[in-house]
Amino acid sequence: MVRQMVRQIVAACLLAAALGLAATCSAARAQTPAAADSNEERIEDLITASHILANEGILDSFGHATVRSASDPSHFFMPRAMPPALVSRADIVELDLDCKPVTPNAPRLNGERYIHCEVYKARADVQSVIHSHDLAVIPFGLTGTPLRPVLAQAGFLPKETPLFEVRDAYGPTAAERGVLVLNSALGKALASKLGSNPVVLMRGHGETVVGRSVKEAAVRTLYTNLDARAQTGAMALSSKLVVLDDAEMAAFEKEERPDRPWENYKQRMLKAQQSSR
Amino acid sequence: MVRQMVRQIVAACLLAAALGLAATCSAARAQTPAAADSNEERIEDLITASHILANEGILDSFGHATVRSASDPSHFFMPRAMPPALVSRADIVELDLDCKPVTPNAPRLNGERYIHCEVYKARADVQSVIHSHDLAVIPFGLTGTPLRPVLAQAGFLPKETPLFEVRDAYGPTAAERGVLVLNSALGKALASKLGSNPVVLMRGHGETVVGRSVKEAAVRTLYTNLDARAQTGAMALSSKLVVLDDAEMAAFEKEERPDRPWENYKQRMLKAQQSSR
Amino acid sequence: MVRQMVRQIVAACLLAAALGLAATCSAARAQTPAAADSNEERIEDLITASHILANEGILDSFGHATVRSASDPSHFFMPRAMPPALVSRADIVELDLDCKPVTPNAPRLNGERYIHCEVYKARADVQSVIHSHDLAVIPFGLTGTPLRPVLAQAGFLPKETPLFEVRDAYGPTAAERGVLVLNSALGKALASKLGSNPVVLMRGHGETVVGRSVKEAAVRTLYTNLDARAQTGAMALSSKLVVLDDAEMAAFEKEERPDRPWENYKQRMLKAQQSSR
Amino acid sequence: MVRQMVRQIVAACLLAAALGLAATCSAARAQTPAAADSNEERIEDLITASHILANEGILDSFGHATVRSASDPSHFFMPRAMPPALVSRADIVELDLDCKPVTPNAPRLNGERYIHCEVYKARADVQSVIHSHDLAVIPFGLTGTPLRPVLAQAGFLPKETPLFEVRDAYGPTAAERGVLVLNSALGKALASKLGSNPVVLMRGHGETVVGRSVKEAAVRTLYTNLDARAQTGAMALSSKLVVLDDAEMAAFEKEERPDRPWENYKQRMLKAQQSSR
Repeated sequence: MVRQMVRQIVAACLLAAALGLAATCSAARAQTPAAADSNEERIEDLITASHILANEGILDSFGHATVRSASDPSHFFMPRAMPPALVSRADIVELDLDCKPVTPNAPRLNGERYIHCEVYKARADVQSVIHSHDLAVIPFGLTGTPLRPVLAQAGFLPKETPLFEVRDAYGPTAAERGVLVLNSALGKALASKLGSNPVVLMRGHGETVVGRSVKEAAVRTLYTNLDARAQTGAMALSSKLVVLDDAEMAAFEKEERPDRPWENYKQRMLKAQQSSR
Repeated sequence: MVRQMVRQIVAACLLAAALGLAATCSAARAQTPAAADSNEERIEDLITASHILANEGILDSFGHATVRSASDPSHFFMPRAMPPALVSRADIVELDLDCKPVTPNAPRLNGERYIHCEVYKARADVQSVIHSHDLAVIPFGLTGTPLRPVLAQAGFLPKETPLFEVRDAYGPTAAERGVLVLNSALGKALASKLGSNPVVLMRGHGETVVGRSVKEAAVRTLYTNLDARAQTGAMALSSKLVVLDDAEMAAFEKEERPDRPWENYKQRMLKAQQSSR
Repeated sequence: MVRQMVRQIVAACLLAAALGLAATCSAARAQTPAAADSNEERIEDLITASHILANEGILDSFGHATVRSASDPSHFFMPRAMPPALVSRADIVELDLDCKPVTPNAPRLNGERYIHCEVYKARADVQSVIHSHDLAVIPFGLTGTPLRPVLAQAGFLPKETPLFEVRDAYGPTAAERGVLVLNSALGKALASKLGSNPVVLMRGHGETVVGRSVKEAAVRTLYTNLDARAQTGAMALSSKLVVLDDAEMAAFEKEERPDRPWENYKQRMLKAQQSSR
Repeated sequence: MVRQMVRQIVAACLLAAALGLAATCSAARAQTPAAADSNEERIEDLITASHILANEGILDSFGHATVRSASDPSHFFMPRAMPPALVSRADIVELDLDCKPVTPNAPRLNGERYIHCEVYKARADVQSVIHSHDLAVIPFGLTGTPLRPVLAQAGFLPKETPLFEVRDAYGPTAAERGVLVLNSALGKALASKLGSNPVVLMRGHGETVVGRSVKEAAVRTLYTNLDARAQTGAMALSSKLVVLDDAEMAAFEKEERPDRPWENYKQRMLKAQQSSR
């Protein structure tokens, strides 16, 4: 009963947002992190996000975006092991939070799916997880340089984005170890380092970004890229750097809405697709 | 009567410019900052400028360009809240200098429209205002590095472009504050920092550029980008930097004509649009 | 008989890889560096690799990719002297390991073909050689800055990629000398500097990358580019830099599979080709 | 009679080059800086060069390429004042070495045409002049950083490319002065600074490149860009930098042939044009 009411509020808010009246709905949205959209809508957004982030050069051959199931919060949807640019509906697999496919005969899965299931386990508020190898962000992890929120539109970033050092997760006695997050223990360690943040850097590897929707996770990934580029540019000019302060981050938090950049980047991606047909 | 004469001079000058004889008209143009074009011509230029600057990666999902009304200098035209790349004629709203739409049932407007109405109030010479989040320029504001005129084609820039620090505009006692220019007081503070300059940097945010026409504001935005990139490149090579001096800036002032770059960038934008059809 | 068995194992492995079961085949693959594909398949991959690397801006007007003959390991296939972006089947020439065409009336050949024949002579495990002038990598050679493996996907790089200084190869008494590898002696010196590594940098010139297949050499070239860009970005932020350690490189070695990036970059290239038709 | 012989040698060489046998012709070419092609062929190359360099982002809205007349060495061909990307046959004007159009009713000309006529006057060996505002090169002039030949394919560059400081050309007593080369005296001063070099940097402005053909000037402009980017990248990594030495520059001089990069960049430009039709 309560759930149905929330659904109606959310649906009204989505309509209001489309009509340019979204401000009145922010309270309702804040209380409903899992918007009551359908699984097919979520999967459609997942495919769109994969294509957008590939088109912008942020998702490469190996990254992956996922979305939690709307009907069963202990499941999530993930493309099979393949380049994100090429994902279509037939490539989407439903997994449980042990990272096992829920149907038999699943296609080959990404070895790093443990990033996703462990983050969904640890963070009930998270509806979408995106793991990318963004070349604008990687230098921060390689050098331990703190990534800071410097852009107005990147106010979701914490004052210092946490950095996951996979060697620490393995510990000093591991017989064999690599960089990739290929099992549940590493996934847990990554989720632990993420904590309640929206982004965690991964040394020599990339980053993982979460959101309350696919759109939010995708737009945060895009603005993490822009923020990293702005900070890099600033550090090339001077050692002085003004970062967002508490008041500015609080102001952003009340305003975070991914719709406009989502639409902008989606249209860019669709144009790029059309030009090659 | 005087106004009609000015219109005729301007029309003759536009024709002369098209024929390659514009030099004789510079005096007339200098005296007629508001060229006597029609509102529809201005709106068409506004849409073209939005598409050009999006195509060049300078206007992102959130920036906005506006133009003062040709028929009523206390009104201006602005796209509704949407990505500039996607703006078309139906999205254009007419506002007064209190930033209120002049017709009922206006669509949702940009929260930062106060940048525009306050600059139009403060600067009678300004016919067009462009607010962008240019990633090539932002590092200067983030670090307080003075942006200098280093390129021959950027001689419109002052010796040191002013920097708007929004925290100063709020003052030390503000209970809540953010980075965006969301009300009239902040708009006034920004216009005050702009002063009589063509560009003002905005820390953590972007910049605002003004011109005596949409074309001029757009081309100044493009050359602010190029100048910032040239200065950044120079500062990576050496701490020595030769900037334009008074004589060189004066020479530029007599020659500033946006027509050729406008046409070049417009054709690039149209080609990019055609390739996706 | 043994050769036929190897072929069957390899064919089964290729099928298994396509089905997502490749892990079981890694032992077999390690023992069969020359996969039992046909010459026509190798040549098709060679043309695709040339187009992919040109599309990514890594092969310019002068670089070249080659592949060893599947039927005669003392022969290899190379495009005639022309830009890699424009290569098609009719441009492919078969050469012996003295760098001489095996048929009369061959078209004009690349002066730097000695890079290829000498590497094939020195390295029986190498099935493909790619010489590029990658602008992201060249600064390392120009300054003697060691290129390090910093990205998880670049674990094939040695701890320090060797650098070929052509002046050393000529020796102090050479009457005439240049930068290009235009004869057998220089090719031998380059192959010697390459040693058992997958990549050798060439000062003022570019790099040469080898692989156990065209796909592997092409994907290594792509990730050498990405690794160089990541390291360059890191060095701009800080003098601290965490590089892959022995355990991480060993983990990569067991997992190196070029199929997914190959498919991703191939589709990007095909889209770019389609958009211009 | 001699001239006809030279023409025949050159024609044979062009054929030989197309067939991959160009080496035997280098002596003949060295003695015939003005290849005996027709004016229409030269103009066609001029238009192609303008489109290539605009497509590569090196010629912007204001740069210009010209070619000396094949039939009258005291004339040259130049596009009217317009963006190079948009030039077509109807835009080409024939000028004399006083920078005056040879026919009445010429369209508006580039103010900076004095760069071209003065260089043609001073350098009988020069058949083509290209003035660009290449953003990769400008930082060198802004900071007085010597541009060095660091790439094998940029061996045409002198050990230190000369830098034109327009303030020196005006002298300390000039009442009015700017950055642009708008008269004969400034053109002469620029030609003097160019000397016998292939490139001269212009502070705050760009560069001028010359060649024995349009193709050579265009390809030198492209490789000046690549060399500047390589040197910039190197200087970001280290203060150590290995540049080409005398022997390496001498080796390049014997091999300089623009045909392969010309064809490569021309095809890229044609593909980009096709994709927008």
